[in-house]
Amino acid sequence: MKYTAPLAHMRYLLNDVFEAGKHWAEMPAFAAIDSNTVDAILEEGAKLCSEVIAPLNRSGDEEGAQIHNGIVTTPKGFPDAYRKIAEGGWVGLAGDPAYGGQGLPKMLTVLFEEMLYSANNSFTLYVALTSGAALAIHAHASDELKQTYLPNMYSGKWAGAMCMTEPHAGSDLGIMKTKAEPQADDSYRITGTKIFITGGDHDLTENIVHLVLARLPDAPAGPKGISLFLVPKILVNTDGSLGARNAVTASALEHKMGIKGSSTCVMNFDGAVGYMVGKPHQGLAAMFTMMNYERLSIGIQGIGCGEMSYQNAVRYAKDRLQGRAAHGAANPQGVADPIIHHADIRRLLLTQRAWNEASRAFAVYVGLQLDLANYHPDHDTTVKAAQRVALLTPVAKAFFTDKGFDACVLGQQVLGGHGYIRDNGQEQLVRDARIAQIYEGTNGIQAQDLLKRKVLANGGRWMRDFILEMEQDTLLASPVFASEEDAVLKACSTLRELTLWLVKQDKRDADLCSSAACDYLHIVGHTIYAWLWLKMIATNPADTDRHVLGRFYFGRLLPQIHALDAAVRSGPDLVMDLPVDKF
Amino acid sequence: MKYTAPLAHMRYLLNDVFEAGKHWAEMPAFAAIDSNTVDAILEEGAKLCSEVIAPLNRSGDEEGAQIHNGIVTTPKGFPDAYRKIAEGGWVGLAGDPAYGGQGLPKMLTVLFEEMLYSANNSFTLYVALTSGAALAIHAHASDELKQTYLPNMYSGKWAGAMCMTEPHAGSDLGIMKTKAEPQADDSYRITGTKIFITGGDHDLTENIVHLVLARLPDAPAGPKGISLFLVPKILVNTDGSLGARNAVTASALEHKMGIKGSSTCVMNFDGAVGYMVGKPHQGLAAMFTMMNYERLSIGIQGIGCGEMSYQNAVRYAKDRLQGRAAHGAANPQGVADPIIHHADIRRLLLTQRAWNEASRAFAVYVGLQLDLANYHPDHDTTVKAAQRVALLTPVAKAFFTDKGFDACVLGQQVLGGHGYIRDNGQEQLVRDARIAQIYEGTNGIQAQDLLKRKVLANGGRWMRDFILEMEQDTLLASPVFASEEDAVLKACSTLRELTLWLVKQDKRDADLCSSAACDYLHIVGHTIYAWLWLKMIATNPADTDRHVLGRFYFGRLLPQIHALDAAVRSGPDLVMDLPVDKF
Repeated sequence: MKYTAPLAHMRYLLNDVFEAGKHWAEMPAFAAIDSNTVDAILEEGAKLCSEVIAPLNRSGDEEGAQIHNGIVTTPKGFPDAYRKIAEGGWVGLAGDPAYGGQGLPKMLTVLFEEMLYSANNSFTLYVALTSGAALAIHAHASDELKQTYLPNMYSGKWAGAMCMTEPHAGSDLGIMKTKAEPQADDSYRITGTKIFITGGDHDLTENIVHLVLARLPDAPAGPKGISLFLVPKILVNTDGSLGARNAVTASALEHKMGIKGSSTCVMNFDGAVGYMVGKPHQGLAAMFTMMNYERLSIGIQGIGCGEMSYQNAVRYAKDRLQGRAAHGAANPQGVADPIIHHADIRRLLLTQRAWNEASRAFAVYVGLQLDLANYHPDHDTTVKAAQRVALLTPVAKAFFTDKGFDACVLGQQVLGGHGYIRDNGQEQLVRDARIAQIYEGTNGIQAQDLLKRKVLANGGRWMRDFILEMEQDTLLASPVFASEEDAVLKACSTLRELTLWLVKQDKRDADLCSSAACDYLHIVGHTIYAWLWLKMIATNPADTDRHVLGRFYFGRLLPQIHALDAAVRSGPDLVMDLPVDKF
Repeated sequence: MKYTAPLAHMRYLLNDVFEAGKHWAEMPAFAAIDSNTVDAILEEGAKLCSEVIAPLNRSGDEEGAQIHNGIVTTPKGFPDAYRKIAEGGWVGLAGDPAYGGQGLPKMLTVLFEEMLYSANNSFTLYVALTSGAALAIHAHASDELKQTYLPNMYSGKWAGAMCMTEPHAGSDLGIMKTKAEPQADDSYRITGTKIFITGGDHDLTENIVHLVLARLPDAPAGPKGISLFLVPKILVNTDGSLGARNAVTASALEHKMGIKGSSTCVMNFDGAVGYMVGKPHQGLAAMFTMMNYERLSIGIQGIGCGEMSYQNAVRYAKDRLQGRAAHGAANPQGVADPIIHHADIRRLLLTQRAWNEASRAFAVYVGLQLDLANYHPDHDTTVKAAQRVALLTPVAKAFFTDKGFDACVLGQQVLGGHGYIRDNGQEQLVRDARIAQIYEGTNGIQAQDLLKRKVLANGGRWMRDFILEMEQDTLLASPVFASEEDAVLKACSTLRELTLWLVKQDKRDADLCSSAACDYLHIVGHTIYAWLWLKMIATNPADTDRHVLGRFYFGRLLPQIHALDAAVRSGPDLVMDLPVDKF
């Protein structure tokens, strides 16, 4: 599949819709970034993804990651490609310059992440997990650990992996069993089995840095008894050179629906040497600080898949001749018209496009909030931005991946039978995109996080603040877009009223939150996308084509909000009343 | 995966909701069927599916159909299992007794078809295609052809295949190129290439009977120049014994997303001997008479997948311990509660269940209409039933398979990461179910068929008649169900008004129909499911559990109808206004 990064839309979002330069000027860490640098990064990144990484996508799926005699290998071409992106400094794009990172803003790097996922999901996971592990180390590890590990991770010399799930402990990490025993030298010995470990072992780098959740001997039961440890695949000598093999091994790979080029490992820790990251019993909290980044990244996997599926579907729809356009032949010399002239095919393509572009805009917005939270000199600004990040990250992760998966299914449908066979790549995107709704916290878990911890826990205050921001921003739009403005304000009202209703009803029924959460998250997503579609069309009123896309969103997709609102308000009894034995 | 046929619900639909016995008593062909026979068929069928066919599902997916040196083989165990169902007479269950069929009513056989699909999609396709081909032969072939071929097809000794699609001609069959040249002995020589031929070649039977669409030398261009031919893999001597190999060969198998145990062949016809079925240039019409059956069958694939996914998800949800129920510990002695106690998990399971049970009811209803159309002695009854079949078949095919696919995705989500790996079978169901939205006419084509040919072509009269039937039936429900009754009547009004609006607007905009069709079909589906849910709960008001399920449908799923209505009414401009080069 040929991939072309949607650079025009990316630049439009960055420069025009969200005025990145203005924000960067206010943050000393980013003040030096100029538009030439940004252009170079986007263009070089696009080239790398199209020319080096995308060509390995299909073959990587066919070949898959393999394990033989305990040795894990990635598909042909992956090690070379990884070396190329490492050498270009792409692994440490957002890393701290104090340890050799590029220190670039998240609102820019989200766009490169999207390109990577469009080009090759499996390959990108090795990069994403490394960035994620580096983030957690950067936030919580001792300076000694940072000095030893971060420069090698940012440079792509070493990779990272996150070891959380156990066979009996997935969404419920509190009941995990892996043990950590303290040693005289301040290190720990880690023993246990972890499953579903993305990039747990592979042949891309000379070392792999595992972040492992485990219990100390004196740990209290439940989630507040879990600590975080750094466990290298190969021990590192005090001079920084590689030493002995640590007692951490991949015993098997999972056979999966998709992301087959990504090694999903069962990892055995047999008294492996580890070093504590952060404080005892605060491992989950330490993981959560980097989780907003990781969840956003996995959300972006959904966008990347949706975009690739759209490009592939458009190409086919312009090429494939079947039937005649209802309004008159578009290709009278040919036996039939390109199917892009059929309204139903356009409906599929435009639905993909409407999700993809709104998702991209929302990713840039959340990236901006992460930057503000971490780098803005004004305290109030950072507090408000951190709140936005906490509130919106579960929405981004779940809504991007739900709509990204839907977009892939629609893109496959455009190709009909030719989308079901493997040759055209559309079915692989459906298989690859599907995992993003599940891992890094299922979308059900994201929805609980949103409604329970980010909305109900503060009486809906954070959400009401955010709704106010969307409304105020909407009121700035030109009167040309009055009908879209009305639609956004109406969606905001629906969301505000429903939020209040949930805050009120929550006290009365313990099951309400869980019964409402997923549909509520989708209502939030729709409201945000309505706001962003108006923002995208209103930023440049002269762009009538984008106005058509926005009208499509408002006319055909936004109405789903009312069905979701009715579903939430139908209450928890409808889901709780059936006795367990009647399922 | 363990499969248990939902016999209680099946019997409830047949005996109570649709009163099969009453209908059969009116049709001489079925008057002799007693309830013992029906029970025996359902129970034996269930046993066969659980014990013989389901165990081959996973291994069939892993192994796949294979081609070596032009010889196609099915996965291990398939030939034996096929022999078993052949010997039991299951292939000819609905076949004409005059040629050795069992002559059973469709409203019964749809239930066995569902069991087959639940057990094993790939295996079932070999059976379904044979039944389909036999139907077309029965309806249109000469008595000589019928005598030669039907008994061997009903007995499962020979299989059938339908050869329609060509590389450049899928949804648009009118532009196909395969040629048929008349010979002196009244036979024809067929030459051309067909693709995506399900069961085009295999090792299950000693012969395969292909029905092939092709053009005569004098054929007019387009769909009215296509004729239908019977082309056996092995020629049949006048005494009925097998003769020489015919010039029809599988040159390759497709590599697909799913249904991997089903051989999807590229078929080459190199002057193969064929016999005309029906009249010259009327091949498409001949195919269409059996297509209602075939489309219903493929629809049922969606139900079968949804049911299997539900059963698998329920089992996991009762077993898997994660987190605590919001309303208090359900398993206080354990480390956590079974996830079926979480409202969000129940929401997923009940959504599957609500689709599955309504789909099953609708399949039985459409089966009944097929029986009435073909076997009822009263002419007016047959005419009305044939109209219902024509109107509702595209809805059944598309809505069953769209909701079946959705159900499989939800069932996979219940298992989280354990649903993404291959071991638990949920991901295979997603991959297998996906094809049913595409083949046998994509769901987009079904929607065009519904709106253009079955609704707009008669000014909406058929649909208005059907809405009236649903309304009259709804008014018979007990006042206990007044709120559900209101909801059905409201859905009927929405559908009636939208239908009138479409009839009116259609004259003004050529693209309206195509832009509206898919969402319109879903509105029709929702209205029917609302009617059937009321019918299911009102038939036995004492069954409070079923009332809970019905309330779930009305409260959480039916509201989608309003979003769909708004989308249709937003009109075709939103999809047509973007210039082709801006996609």
